[in-house]
Amino acid sequence: SPVADNSTPPADQLPSWNDGKVKKEIFDFVDAVTDPESPTFVEIPDRIAVFDNDGTLWSEQPLYFQLFFVIYQIKKMAPDHPEWITEQPFKAILDDDMATLKTFGMKELLELVMTTHAGITSVEFENAVMDWLHNDRHPSLKKPFTKLVYQPMLELMNYLRDNDFKVFIVSGGGIDFMRPWAEEVYGIPRNQVVGSSIVTQFELKDGEPVLVRMPELNFIDDKEGKPVGIYRHIGRKPIFCGGNSDGDLQMMQYTDSGKGKRMMLYIHHTDAEREWAYDRDSHIGRFNKALDEATEKGWTIVNMKTDWKVIYPE
Amino acid sequence: SPVADNSTPPADQLPSWNDGKVKKEIFDFVDAVTDPESPTFVEIPDRIAVFDNDGTLWSEQPLYFQLFFVIYQIKKMAPDHPEWITEQPFKAILDDDMATLKTFGMKELLELVMTTHAGITSVEFENAVMDWLHNDRHPSLKKPFTKLVYQPMLELMNYLRDNDFKVFIVSGGGIDFMRPWAEEVYGIPRNQVVGSSIVTQFELKDGEPVLVRMPELNFIDDKEGKPVGIYRHIGRKPIFCGGNSDGDLQMMQYTDSGKGKRMMLYIHHTDAEREWAYDRDSHIGRFNKALDEATEKGWTIVNMKTDWKVIYPE
Ligand SMILES: [Ca+2]
Ligand SMILES: [Ca+2]
Repeated sequence: SPVADNSTPPADQLPSWNDGKVKKEIFDFVDAVTDPESPTFVEIPDRIAVFDNDGTLWSEQPLYFQLFFVIYQIKKMAPDHPEWITEQPFKAILDDDMATLKTFGMKELLELVMTTHAGITSVEFENAVMDWLHNDRHPSLKKPFTKLVYQPMLELMNYLRDNDFKVFIVSGGGIDFMRPWAEEVYGIPRNQVVGSSIVTQFELKDGEPVLVRMPELNFIDDKEGKPVGIYRHIGRKPIFCGGNSDGDLQMMQYTDSGKGKRMMLYIHHTDAEREWAYDRDSHIGRFNKALDEATEKGWTIVNMKTDWKVIYPE
Repeated sequence: SPVADNSTPPADQLPSWNDGKVKKEIFDFVDAVTDPESPTFVEIPDRIAVFDNDGTLWSEQPLYFQLFFVIYQIKKMAPDHPEWITEQPFKAILDDDMATLKTFGMKELLELVMTTHAGITSVEFENAVMDWLHNDRHPSLKKPFTKLVYQPMLELMNYLRDNDFKVFIVSGGGIDFMRPWAEEVYGIPRNQVVGSSIVTQFELKDGEPVLVRMPELNFIDDKEGKPVGIYRHIGRKPIFCGGNSDGDLQMMQYTDSGKGKRMMLYIHHTDAEREWAYDRDSHIGRFNKALDEATEKGWTIVNMKTDWKVIYPE
């Protein structure tokens, strides 16, 4: 008769994930790359994991959260800009005219971003981001935006770190917008946040060295830009990649192209009740071409509705 | 009568530094920011140290070592470029004509750099760098270039890391030129190397994702660029900065401008016997304006001849 098994089952490090195919794939992947006996063992310096941010680590509806920051800033700056009352794209924001806001293309968005993100020093910008985080609330969920991060993903990042992974954000969002809070919220140090950026310039202002943010794009960390951002900031090919949209497809392909065991994990927003449900036709976080490719290549697809016990931290 | 002191003196963590003012300043600084009782205690995430590379962590004479890589590459590529035999700037290299080589300005250097650093994938470039390191030798010292790093600086970086500093390179040299060996030689992970870069592009080559290096400058990490590179890659102001030339002055000023205790440490090349002696008039590693400012502001200046017991690792 078999010997009684007295061993305690290991504590579940992903308690907010329902048992099933996806959770098992995660555990199997980590075992396969960290067990020294495994033929697919990976040395610690190569245990690089990258995560998209919007829609992967926190929500992104009804607008990318960085746009709520833009709206907050424009309203804060409005008293000094009386002309904005009649001038687009500012008027739509001051009138809370979401319908018009949603029609804005790249030109209007760029004008809004440059107005709120440039012309100030790095320190002033960071203070503005923290002011927004402390004082603004999500319009329908009525919570601070940093409470709208995904609990299962926090657990996943911790689990990877416990297994000596170095975890990076690689996001289309602003690098300097994410850094002030990524460490506290995600446990990701500032130098492990990769994102889009504007040109910054060193100046002596009254003899004091400052970094002034210029109204000029420096780097767009999206689509083909994501593998470039990874090369520039990390310098190693990841073995784990998490994302949720077509904008992550190139970094998934890049991750997938390495030798040995890799994991590509896509979040599918399927939960209209607890979060939002959207994919192929969404303006934000479109998941169309990548949904086909992920399915075809057998990448992991998280069904938010069935794979996650909870969405946000309690 | 005093109680006998039975405590063992702590092991000297900077054995290659002679006792004296500079060594004491280093110990005092680290104590002041790491002792929890100290009024100038610094939390671990803010313990950021940045080091220039050429002339600070390894030698840079008679040419920046990256130029020896360029020379090596040009000679390796020459059989496929018979036209180079008569064409400058290539001819000077193929003829070992150092006199002409030293007259080259930015235009010629850029052409040489783009010829050897671009038009290939990230992987091909890394292989080229490692091929050079394994097979080339310094012309007068007859050693592999990675043996020409400064033993006292290796100890200093280890000492800082032992005290929970995160150590970064912030160099005018190529980021992708340094990364393949910085981890093994300096213990600095790839993502903690900041440097100059060329534009890189994501492409699918026969269906395989690759990063192709383009013949276009992306970022010059020198002078005013150094604080910008720090902001872009690190996102925190350093509290320790090591350098050796006027090109480091802005990142020294930037480091110095923070609140609390900071340390700015300049290497002064004073040892013509064991290394090289040069400062105000040198074409490479000019230390002129910064020598005045460092003296005036009381920054630490390492006198290589008297402060260092040895230069290179045994
Ligand atoms: Ca996304
Ligand atoms: Ca230097």
